[in-house]
Amino acid sequence: MRLPVDFHTHHGAFGAYGSFTLGNAGAGGGFNIHDGRAPTKGEVHVGFARPNQAAFLPFSSPSAADLSAFAGSGAGAERETRRVSIVAADSIERELGWGTDTWRSEELSFALATPFGSVPDPRSAGWEALAPHILPAIWAELSLDNSRSDEPALLVAGLAPKDAGAAPLPLPGLVGVDFQGRFGMATSSGNGAKVYAGFSPMDCIGPDLAPRPPHWLGTSWGLCWPVPAGKRLSVRFALGWYHAGPATAGPSTVYGYTRVWKDLEDVLAAAVGCTEASWETARERDRELETLSPERRWLLSHATRGYFGNSQLLSTPAGDPVYVVNEGEYCMMNTLDLSVDQVFFEGRFFPWATREVLDLAVDRYSFLDRLKVPGDTILHEGGVSFCHDMGVRNMFSEAGTSSYEVADLEGCFSHMAFEQVCNWVVLAAHHLHSSGDGNWLARNRDLLESLRTSLERREHPDPSLRRGVPGTDSARCGSGTEITTYDSLDPSLSQARGNLYAAVKLWAAYLALERLSRAAGIPWESAARDASRVAEAIEAWPREDDALSALLETRTRSAILPAVECLVHPHVWGDRDAVSPRGRFGGMIRTLEAHLDAVLEFGLCRFADGGWRLSSTSDNSWLSKIFLVQRVAERVFARPPDRRADAAHVSWLSPGSAAWGFTDQIESGKGIGSRYYPRGVTAILFLDS
Amino acid sequence: MRLPVDFHTHHGAFGAYGSFTLGNAGAGGGFNIHDGRAPTKGEVHVGFARPNQAAFLPFSSPSAADLSAFAGSGAGAERETRRVSIVAADSIERELGWGTDTWRSEELSFALATPFGSVPDPRSAGWEALAPHILPAIWAELSLDNSRSDEPALLVAGLAPKDAGAAPLPLPGLVGVDFQGRFGMATSSGNGAKVYAGFSPMDCIGPDLAPRPPHWLGTSWGLCWPVPAGKRLSVRFALGWYHAGPATAGPSTVYGYTRVWKDLEDVLAAAVGCTEASWETARERDRELETLSPERRWLLSHATRGYFGNSQLLSTPAGDPVYVVNEGEYCMMNTLDLSVDQVFFEGRFFPWATREVLDLAVDRYSFLDRLKVPGDTILHEGGVSFCHDMGVRNMFSEAGTSSYEVADLEGCFSHMAFEQVCNWVVLAAHHLHSSGDGNWLARNRDLLESLRTSLERREHPDPSLRRGVPGTDSARCGSGTEITTYDSLDPSLSQARGNLYAAVKLWAAYLALERLSRAAGIPWESAARDASRVAEAIEAWPREDDALSALLETRTRSAILPAVECLVHPHVWGDRDAVSPRGRFGGMIRTLEAHLDAVLEFGLCRFADGGWRLSSTSDNSWLSKIFLVQRVAERVFARPPDRRADAAHVSWLSPGSAAWGFTDQIESGKGIGSRYYPRGVTAILFLDS
Repeated sequence: MRLPVDFHTHHGAFGAYGSFTLGNAGAGGGFNIHDGRAPTKGEVHVGFARPNQAAFLPFSSPSAADLSAFAGSGAGAERETRRVSIVAADSIERELGWGTDTWRSEELSFALATPFGSVPDPRSAGWEALAPHILPAIWAELSLDNSRSDEPALLVAGLAPKDAGAAPLPLPGLVGVDFQGRFGMATSSGNGAKVYAGFSPMDCIGPDLAPRPPHWLGTSWGLCWPVPAGKRLSVRFALGWYHAGPATAGPSTVYGYTRVWKDLEDVLAAAVGCTEASWETARERDRELETLSPERRWLLSHATRGYFGNSQLLSTPAGDPVYVVNEGEYCMMNTLDLSVDQVFFEGRFFPWATREVLDLAVDRYSFLDRLKVPGDTILHEGGVSFCHDMGVRNMFSEAGTSSYEVADLEGCFSHMAFEQVCNWVVLAAHHLHSSGDGNWLARNRDLLESLRTSLERREHPDPSLRRGVPGTDSARCGSGTEITTYDSLDPSLSQARGNLYAAVKLWAAYLALERLSRAAGIPWESAARDASRVAEAIEAWPREDDALSALLETRTRSAILPAVECLVHPHVWGDRDAVSPRGRFGGMIRTLEAHLDAVLEFGLCRFADGGWRLSSTSDNSWLSKIFLVQRVAERVFARPPDRRADAAHVSWLSPGSAAWGFTDQIESGKGIGSRYYPRGVTAILFLDS
Repeated sequence: MRLPVDFHTHHGAFGAYGSFTLGNAGAGGGFNIHDGRAPTKGEVHVGFARPNQAAFLPFSSPSAADLSAFAGSGAGAERETRRVSIVAADSIERELGWGTDTWRSEELSFALATPFGSVPDPRSAGWEALAPHILPAIWAELSLDNSRSDEPALLVAGLAPKDAGAAPLPLPGLVGVDFQGRFGMATSSGNGAKVYAGFSPMDCIGPDLAPRPPHWLGTSWGLCWPVPAGKRLSVRFALGWYHAGPATAGPSTVYGYTRVWKDLEDVLAAAVGCTEASWETARERDRELETLSPERRWLLSHATRGYFGNSQLLSTPAGDPVYVVNEGEYCMMNTLDLSVDQVFFEGRFFPWATREVLDLAVDRYSFLDRLKVPGDTILHEGGVSFCHDMGVRNMFSEAGTSSYEVADLEGCFSHMAFEQVCNWVVLAAHHLHSSGDGNWLARNRDLLESLRTSLERREHPDPSLRRGVPGTDSARCGSGTEITTYDSLDPSLSQARGNLYAAVKLWAAYLALERLSRAAGIPWESAARDASRVAEAIEAWPREDDALSALLETRTRSAILPAVECLVHPHVWGDRDAVSPRGRFGGMIRTLEAHLDAVLEFGLCRFADGGWRLSSTSDNSWLSKIFLVQRVAERVFARPPDRRADAAHVSWLSPGSAAWGFTDQIESGKGIGSRYYPRGVTAILFLDS
């Protein structure tokens, strides 16, 4: 397939919860800072001017000077006599790699580098050691081949953020623009760059292609470079941003990068200084994906940008790190059911981030639960659980509460206490697997005991009535019932009790706890029995042909792909026996394998375009979760990669969700929710490691 | 006339460059922080609910729960069964006082107190002494008369700022909401208040009128109070805001209030603590305007809110104060031609603010000018002048430059070097008049000499060719020419050279400089000659009947009110002789008096509605400037107040500019620019003092 040209994507940096977002044709773009959602409404201008015409790349949105606020002034607009065109998207090639994003037209090319790599642990390495890894900046390269033209040209790269407040960067050796100390661009003064500023890009450029004296009252500004007739020019510049002062309230933190970079000028100077190294790192990331199919390379690259656009490394006043991943357009902080999926990505580059989330969940967002048992009037002890999230929109929620969960509901916004216990335990096992951090485990020794109780009692408080499936609801639900992370799908996935997906997650959690307990030297005799009880329940699960019912007791026609999702965990831990049809849970594994084949082969879990459908009775399917199931299908059950599905999934994002960055919730090929989402990094499981 | 009900107005606090802005029917509103323009798009909800219905004041905009981002969830909206109505604006009485703004319907009343008063000088008193004066907070009072109802009710006051991030205020003794640490509301827990939060105000209130458990993921939240059937209830609460971290860049400053109030919680606790005193101060300000006509009371009260919504008291890292007034929707900082008009207001309450602006103008925004003389090819020495402004949108411009002025223009955005010399000198004389600060004057002794040279040479570098009118242009104009503050009016006011308004301003500047020189003990023998030269020029000015031509040499049909504007300065300094028809400039004064009568009586400077027109050839008229001319007409020339004009001026603001707070540029009765403007405080000249 021809890969998409027309789509917005984040271009962010680790921990900086900000991005230079653009790409959707005609939509403009710009910076979003301290926010992982759409950029503040603004224009982007990347292109070139000749004496009588100018051309911009498709995402650009150059408008004429708007002086309407200066009532009656009548100045300015009549100076724009140049014919302005936008290069057609279908004459452009766009190549999205893991570290670079490149647009190429006949004469012009533009690329953005968003390098990333392993980040040292701030607790052991200290903030200074993190400095190069947490620079809130990205790098651009702009080239014009003017060799076949007998006219001079001017390369132009600028913004019009719909607000005033720009000024020239007052740094020796640099040419650049500082916008309110919040974002800007800069390059080395050696490459011939000049600054322009005024009420529209074309109004800023005189008929001789020289920029007019900057008018900083205007809202349009940027850098420009002359290119003589018959010549080629390629220039690089940096884009950076800065959020000073508090980043969160209740508790108050600041961005980690403010510990080592004192302001925007500092950031831009450093960014220009490490231009070469940054491009090298970005290209190195690009090369790592060469073995993937073009579709998967694109999916992982797009998803990775969604993750970094939502990642936030903070510091307490005392200098302790706090790591937050924000939930895309919903802005919920450290949603634990996202963390458990993002761990595959985090474990590769910054495993300590998982530890920070686990610890904060224990310290501030754990609680001792009580349980409701259907038919019972009294409440039972439930053991420890965790909140769904830690707050919303940079505001930590009160200790022991999430922003999402409320009482007395049957569906969306109800509690997820069962699933969050599983998530914490599974996440902890991943953390141990990738970090081998025995000290951390020792510190959490006592908690493991409580978690075991919590998991077991959520089947049933009475051991003799445990059936290997979640059978209770948190008392926090009030008159309602627990849900799962699949909150906006149909009841086949959203009800926790007696749910097939939840049961397999419970099994994975028992395995995780067993690994943790063993490593911590805690005897747990019933471990195998607990996991086997779930496996037996799955073997005996009601089915039609081989397709298992989504719910144990309620009659439903739904078939669900996430039945196999949680096999990914022992698979990634390298526990081949656990997921082998001939292993200790062989009966369950064979049952799930037959289920997967059945729901895919019968077309129950496929859309018309070949994309995968999480629930046969819902048109809403989530890409990040599909990627997990694809890994299980290919690596646990050795099914061949479904390239038709991959192509469909690409099309769900562009054109299906072109306006919103990586989007997770897709209804019949169109994005409907979870826009600008971080969780797509489950696509890292497309890689071998 | 019935005073307006339907209009947006700032409700701000001294130096806090922020506001709780609302009032325009159906427009919602909310906070604007670190910004003097429109509030961030949001809803405001002030009203009450009964079991089956709810009613809100006209500015409220309660919408139903919007859960579209939670794709497929289907939760929430169906719980809103209460019939919601908006009280009709024509059944409401709104009373805008200097310190309070009150809405009254049959059962409900709501008032906002924005107290202000004399503010100590931070340089001598220190920041601690300023603490109560720079609290970024306002106060609300909400009352329901439920005495004739046999149903209980719930008073509701809340916001829906179109973004998540609210949490309950964790302060003992208080009930309130903290939104991202940036703004919030609080009241004493003793008055029965409860917090609500969710996806719409009505979805948050159960059928029994009890608020449901708060759902902080929602974007709608506030306070509510039960009112039993047959009872009355009146409650007070505080609204506060906070901008931590840098307030400006290049140079970097923070808000002064951050020196004494550490965060939003601190602000809200302090605000609740001084509720009674704040209402007393606000009412005291209300009472001061009792002698004014209702129209003038309304105009001054509305304009005062525009000023405070744009006022910004900052602190350097070293703790030195920096005072900025931002220019409404244009956000230019300390525009000197606004300062010179706002001095009448500042001189009453915080005369030191004028000193800060004068000093910053000298230290960072003065320059040694050169002059162009028409017909001459060489440039002449010009003496000191000042930039039009000090930057835009919280970004200080480079030293020695403004954000507004650029070269090579004939109109809007050209340089104003002549007028800014006059403005600095006149402002300095006002400062001396209101503060008597001889030390300050002594520090600026040398500058006075340079200013005299600068003023004189701007007539003409050759003393023998000075004609009492500005006759040169700053070399900064390049190929263009200087303009005046009246940049968007027709050429009758916008060209500086040979301009009638500018000539009278030059005369006022000579008088100002004479006062300053005399106080500083600087001999200036030619002082009387300089001023008299202007007076003679005015006496000899070309005219048609008694109406003076706006320009000396260009043939124009324009008649302009601002010809008399600058008489206000010696009038306010108490120099009766200077403005007396029988005084030392009697000929000029009689000429201007005849001019004023002529342009008003012939209807040249009146609109059809009776409002005043600054230039007979422009439909664009500026309220703040009209107020100055009204003062001159009434107090210098003893003309009776023009109540028909006052009523027209009120209508220009509402309905004419209802959506934008105090608006200065009015085209035939409708606001077209200078929205959310500070300069309307020239209306303080309606008062006797």
